[in-house]
Amino acid sequence: MADRTELSDIGEFGLIEHLTKGIELKNKSSIKGIGDDAAVIDRGDHVEVVSSDLLVEGVHFDLGYTPFKHLGYKAVVVNVSDICAMNAQPTHILVSIAVSNRFPVEVLDELYAGIKLACDTYEIDFVGGDTSTSTSGLMISVTAIGSADKDKIAYRSGAKDNDLVCVSGDLGAAYIGLQILEREKQIWKENPKVQPDLEGFDYVLERILKPEARKDVVTALAKNEIQPTSMIDISDGLGSELLHICKSSECGVRVYEDKLPIDPTTASQSKEFKMEPSVCAMNGGEDYELLFTVDQKDFEKVRAMEEVHIIGHITDKASGAAIIYPQGEEIEIKAQGWKSF
Amino acid sequence: MADRTELSDIGEFGLIEHLTKGIELKNKSSIKGIGDDAAVIDRGDHVEVVSSDLLVEGVHFDLGYTPFKHLGYKAVVVNVSDICAMNAQPTHILVSIAVSNRFPVEVLDELYAGIKLACDTYEIDFVGGDTSTSTSGLMISVTAIGSADKDKIAYRSGAKDNDLVCVSGDLGAAYIGLQILEREKQIWKENPKVQPDLEGFDYVLERILKPEARKDVVTALAKNEIQPTSMIDISDGLGSELLHICKSSECGVRVYEDKLPIDPTTASQSKEFKMEPSVCAMNGGEDYELLFTVDQKDFEKVRAMEEVHIIGHITDKASGAAIIYPQGEEIEIKAQGWKSF
Repeated sequence: MADRTELSDIGEFGLIEHLTKGIELKNKSSIKGIGDDAAVIDRGDHVEVVSSDLLVEGVHFDLGYTPFKHLGYKAVVVNVSDICAMNAQPTHILVSIAVSNRFPVEVLDELYAGIKLACDTYEIDFVGGDTSTSTSGLMISVTAIGSADKDKIAYRSGAKDNDLVCVSGDLGAAYIGLQILEREKQIWKENPKVQPDLEGFDYVLERILKPEARKDVVTALAKNEIQPTSMIDISDGLGSELLHICKSSECGVRVYEDKLPIDPTTASQSKEFKMEPSVCAMNGGEDYELLFTVDQKDFEKVRAMEEVHIIGHITDKASGAAIIYPQGEEIEIKAQGWKSF
Repeated sequence: MADRTELSDIGEFGLIEHLTKGIELKNKSSIKGIGDDAAVIDRGDHVEVVSSDLLVEGVHFDLGYTPFKHLGYKAVVVNVSDICAMNAQPTHILVSIAVSNRFPVEVLDELYAGIKLACDTYEIDFVGGDTSTSTSGLMISVTAIGSADKDKIAYRSGAKDNDLVCVSGDLGAAYIGLQILEREKQIWKENPKVQPDLEGFDYVLERILKPEARKDVVTALAKNEIQPTSMIDISDGLGSELLHICKSSECGVRVYEDKLPIDPTTASQSKEFKMEPSVCAMNGGEDYELLFTVDQKDFEKVRAMEEVHIIGHITDKASGAAIIYPQGEEIEIKAQGWKSF
């Protein structure tokens, strides 16, 4: 072959953009293809919402500290989160696994116990998939399916000037949980007799090992009659997701550093790792919270919602994306998302 | 861990059965879960049909003789075939790939060119998926989505006594194509200067490298107002699929050896490999033709269809599954499907 472009030269986002350019949607039922959290298919009286994600051993999870049951649970959650991020209700999943012979049936039982638990938690049905051997390692591919009224879907592209920027839950905890696991793994590698010291870190560890999708927030928004103007889930870090909204909606954004919801353990442990808590919140990733925008008219309704925080507002495109510190300093938001290659 | 059951002890079908037992469908929209070619979801005025399949390097394909463009095409086709096997029309796909750094972007371009070509051929839209690095090899996970009127869906379970057993196209060619590729690979391994001798084998090679899904047969059945009583696609070999129909429909079956549709090259090459052509047709696999049953009243209509062959009939459960040879000999059909572990 004459030319050879390395995957590392192009990066994950670059690769997806490169491979999927020139894909045309021909069926009139295809409302949204690649480029949002999920695809949206018009079926007349409603829309189907579909998303697929891969979890690859050694890339997305480390079996050194990830219990199989948690892994199964999380594999479902990250996909359910994509459906929620369209403001749709998840209904079904398909799970395919490729697994090497080195795993006994018993660990797959644990994995599937986690998958089934997540199905119970989110009231979704496990309806299909595939099982295969692999030449090395474990790979899980999940497809989640949801349904919504056509006018309820929230894309990344609907944010407009002056909309309020909201996030659910708190941010940065999953990243701190991961740092603690990595630290204890290093200590254990150097001295296998030392027991990992995970005391007091339950919350941040649960955030990385057993995250939840915010189906409850989607339900609460509907109950409160709030239609988000745009929505995305926070998988790569708040900063990266804000930039996705700005790009798709052709707008700018201002978020306030002191408004970012950060759990106390996340804050104190960030300092242990010599990081600003707000930097963890902006760049940490894997939180699976929802980031969404609402019209100013919904201010009172959204302010009254539990576990939803107003962190800023949408501006015009020319003003760009920035975080404002309490002293008034404005720092431009730059993508720091996870690079896979 | 106290117990350790090896994957090889339980086998692929055993593993799927083991892992998916106890899965309950709770949403009333879940018409069909695991256990058919695709899941069926009730959406009021129609049903959604969804299927996911994995293709793993070194297990499902050998990059030594599989061009990337063909691989991309085939990855779509095998999933589209699952949707067709429900007598539904495929509409959308999602494609996730995990790929090691050893592949340059250019080969992924070829892979995606094949995926896009299949989308054009089958008039389906490529609407989503995921891209990830892998620690080794290439893995492709495709989810296909289709739609149908509720009363048009054909399950594995609807065959009844005296129904006619039909197959589309011809059988065994993909298996013979694979044997030729494997033979030439061995010769090449022993002497890399020898050019592979593939002259005259276009058809059987195309059957293994670039199979087609029988969307045309689904369309033709609708046009001819034939509602199949049961249907399945032939991915593991006719014998294995007949047993699936018998198990799901609680029936027996008789097929006639001299009625099996076999292409002349398949027949002559089978003999080169010292195999009976009908054995290749029964056990070969990867044909992606449709096997279906129709009521006797549709005999004239189905006989008039191009590329559809009536090969036998359904019997009661007690009589079991058998193939009848021209001399009258009856041989029991036993599963010889692909074992992945």
